Amino acid sequence: MNKSLPPKTISGFSKMSKLGKIRWIVENFFKDPERVMQELKQYWLHREEDQKILDAISENTITTFPMPYSVAPNFIINGRTYCVPMVTEESSVVAAASSAAKFWMTRGGFHTELIDVEKVGHVHFVWRGEEAKLRQHFDELKALLLEQTAELTANMRKRGGGIRDIDLRTVVEVPIAHYYQLVVTFDTCDSMGANFINTVLEAFARILRQYFLTAPHFSDAERDVEILMAILSNYTPQSRVHAEVRCAIEELGEIEGYSAEEFARRFKMAIDIARHDIYRAVTHNKGIFNGVDAVVIATGNDFRAVEACGHSYAVQDGLYRGLSQCSLDDGTFRFWLELPMAVGTVGGLTRLHPIARRSLELLGFPSAKELMQIIAAVGLAQNFAAVRSLITTGIQKGHMKMHLNNILLELGATEEQSRAAVEYFKDKTVSYRAVADFIRQFKNSC
Amino acid sequence: MNKSLPPKTISGFSKMSKLGKIRWIVENFFKDPERVMQELKQYWLHREEDQKILDAISENTITTFPMPYSVAPNFIINGRTYCVPMVTEESSVVAAASSAAKFWMTRGGFHTELIDVEKVGHVHFVWRGEEAKLRQHFDELKALLLEQTAELTANMRKRGGGIRDIDLRTVVEVPIAHYYQLVVTFDTCDSMGANFINTVLEAFARILRQYFLTAPHFSDAERDVEILMAILSNYTPQSRVHAEVRCAIEELGEIEGYSAEEFARRFKMAIDIARHDIYRAVTHNKGIFNGVDAVVIATGNDFRAVEACGHSYAVQDGLYRGLSQCSLDDGTFRFWLELPMAVGTVGGLTRLHPIARRSLELLGFPSAKELMQIIAAVGLAQNFAAVRSLITTGIQKGHMKMHLNNILLELGATEEQSRAAVEYFKDKTVSYRAVADFIRQFKNSC
Repeated sequence: MNKSLPPKTISGFSKMSKLGKIRWIVENFFKDPERVMQELKQYWLHREEDQKILDAISENTITTFPMPYSVAPNFIINGRTYCVPMVTEESSVVAAASSAAKFWMTRGGFHTELIDVEKVGHVHFVWRGEEAKLRQHFDELKALLLEQTAELTANMRKRGGGIRDIDLRTVVEVPIAHYYQLVVTFDTCDSMGANFINTVLEAFARILRQYFLTAPHFSDAERDVEILMAILSNYTPQSRVHAEVRCAIEELGEIEGYSAEEFARRFKMAIDIARHDIYRAVTHNKGIFNGVDAVVIATGNDFRAVEACGHSYAVQDGLYRGLSQCSLDDGTFRFWLELPMAVGTVGGLTRLHPIARRSLELLGFPSAKELMQIIAAVGLAQNFAAVRSLITTGIQKGHMKMHLNNILLELGATEEQSRAAVEYFKDKTVSYRAVADFIRQFKNSC
Repeated sequence: MNKSLPPKTISGFSKMSKLGKIRWIVENFFKDPERVMQELKQYWLHREEDQKILDAISENTITTFPMPYSVAPNFIINGRTYCVPMVTEESSVVAAASSAAKFWMTRGGFHTELIDVEKVGHVHFVWRGEEAKLRQHFDELKALLLEQTAELTANMRKRGGGIRDIDLRTVVEVPIAHYYQLVVTFDTCDSMGANFINTVLEAFARILRQYFLTAPHFSDAERDVEILMAILSNYTPQSRVHAEVRCAIEELGEIEGYSAEEFARRFKMAIDIARHDIYRAVTHNKGIFNGVDAVVIATGNDFRAVEACGHSYAVQDGLYRGLSQCSLDDGTFRFWLELPMAVGTVGGLTRLHPIARRSLELLGFPSAKELMQIIAAVGLAQNFAAVRSLITTGIQKGHMKMHLNNILLELGATEEQSRAAVEYFKDKTVSYRAVADFIRQFKNSC
């Protein structure tokens, strides 16, 4: 190790063996190196080939981080039954999704519709030439871009996708003189498309540079272009699904002591508040993503992409709004959601991760379009369950049961102690201190 | 099973044993039930007590979903060295964070500052009385709310936190007549605070109802209040950190063939575009959260909460904007980020999840305030690395190496084949088809 480096820093770490990395970490950052070393190794996967895949997915991988893998059965979506895989570390999320799925199972299930799957990417560049000239010859440039990437896009075109269109855009808001975007729209079929799109865009950047150098209609001063970057956008409002539940208001039945009418009225109020107040909207949408992300992760997709797209789409007319809407017209309860996203069922980790692969099988090997609809339905179900709890019993009822459970686990309570605690705290407020006190007293009294 | 249920639906699923659940799933949704059953069991954790914890975290848990657990060493934050745990399924994220950490290690490291940790929650209610009267007696109501929850908040107050203030708010944007919010601000110390806040708010809802019933200054018509919900907000702009890197522009050195000045100018352009164009802003921020979420997950925190808060905070003056900013004044490169979030280092899963606990130890058992600063620094590092790649080599260079790796894994290539493929594709475009062809030819030629 280089002696002049600050303490606990290291050079060449990424090139060390996995065991070497672990050894360096435990020796520098842990009190009980040997024990931690053993513990980290304990979370390696049973099958070596699986662990190799996990190790190769990321870099500097030293062990695995296990998340609970759960299922929510009874999702009827467009008449078909799904048992949905969910990966989440938050308690009550899967229970809530399952409960909403079951509620709607007998009320027609979820109705979803694909709006489109258009992805988009940009080549950002600065060019000091005459804009009219560029626009005049744009069709020629477009043809060149398509032609020179024909080989790159051949497979995607065979699958029915590829480049949809190429456009030139100036963005007046951006305070950079002579700044342009090549706007490229794509259909990437069943893949999320990030690699495909970025590869095409980087090729476009090279072709664009060459075009300015060689096309006959430019002056010498117009031959220079500064390509800034070429990159897909995770903002894909045109890759979007609609998910909805609906029934006659009276079919909602009595819910936690509220009549169907009262429930529907309160429910719509809650949705309207989230549409108009950012403080409520953020939490409301967070609840939707509790369901969305759980399926996105379980199927090996990229939840940061889905979150970024969904939250930015929530900005409408300059306000951040709740993503779901509710109407009670003509005696009908309607509750719906439009959600943009980019997910895949081939490529990336979807078939590579050993469990993600099984998630896709559990869902009947859906196409990307079908998976988008499943995800949106689960988001809507999650939102329905959360708002239903909020406006009736309050969410703490379910949550505190889980919270008590977690505290008991952390205290290492026996089954007998746990049973007694659950009984005791039925009508009391759960806090760590109160549970610890209870367990202590319980031990003393035994 | 109830015969009248739609096919592949089930009643009483949550009450079945774990093995019973798995059996039902594999028999109903998989072609090779026995094999899948064995496979799902293979991902149970080695130690039964660990698996019990995982099972209890969520519901209907049937196995675990392993994510790669990685580390990014060499993070100097406010002069202290951290080796940061990261959990992500996306390739290149950890490599990029590590590379940015190392780059800044010799340029003063990351400078972070806590702005505040104020959390907030609301009791939403509709009350048809005279607003002036409610406001006139509000101090009395406030005292009552504090007094009657004194026991609930005692521990948090002992730790230096608790309720900061209570306010009454009307929200003109919300189209509901007579709608009010009790706005309650909190300091929840080292816990994320969701359970504490929601418990206090639900108690407030009960006290509020009682207050309207009994306070002497209300008329009979003013005694009714409709409490709609009581819930924390994930929008916490006042729980926020600032993270920054800075150095003299010439200290940046030559980067991938660009001089320090050129690099700095291009970097600032990229940041400015993300500040003003939503298509770029969303992807830009997604990159920040690639780093942020990886640490949030590794420490057992709730990434949906952090995502929702950060993305909604990105909405400024009615536009969704990039979260980071850059300036080049007085020969100094400055790059910074302000990020709101709610995370904890006690409570929730932070100490319960076997690996999350070790993540906190790796970070030196940080306070929540310290963890917020580490997370923001990693987000900034991630953003720096992504933009650096974008404006120099393009991101596909690193990405395609990983993509090739993934394809080789999926094809089950041998080490010899993989080495040859890496060599062959050094200067060629990687696609599944091209790699498969190469491996086939390689086999034939051997």
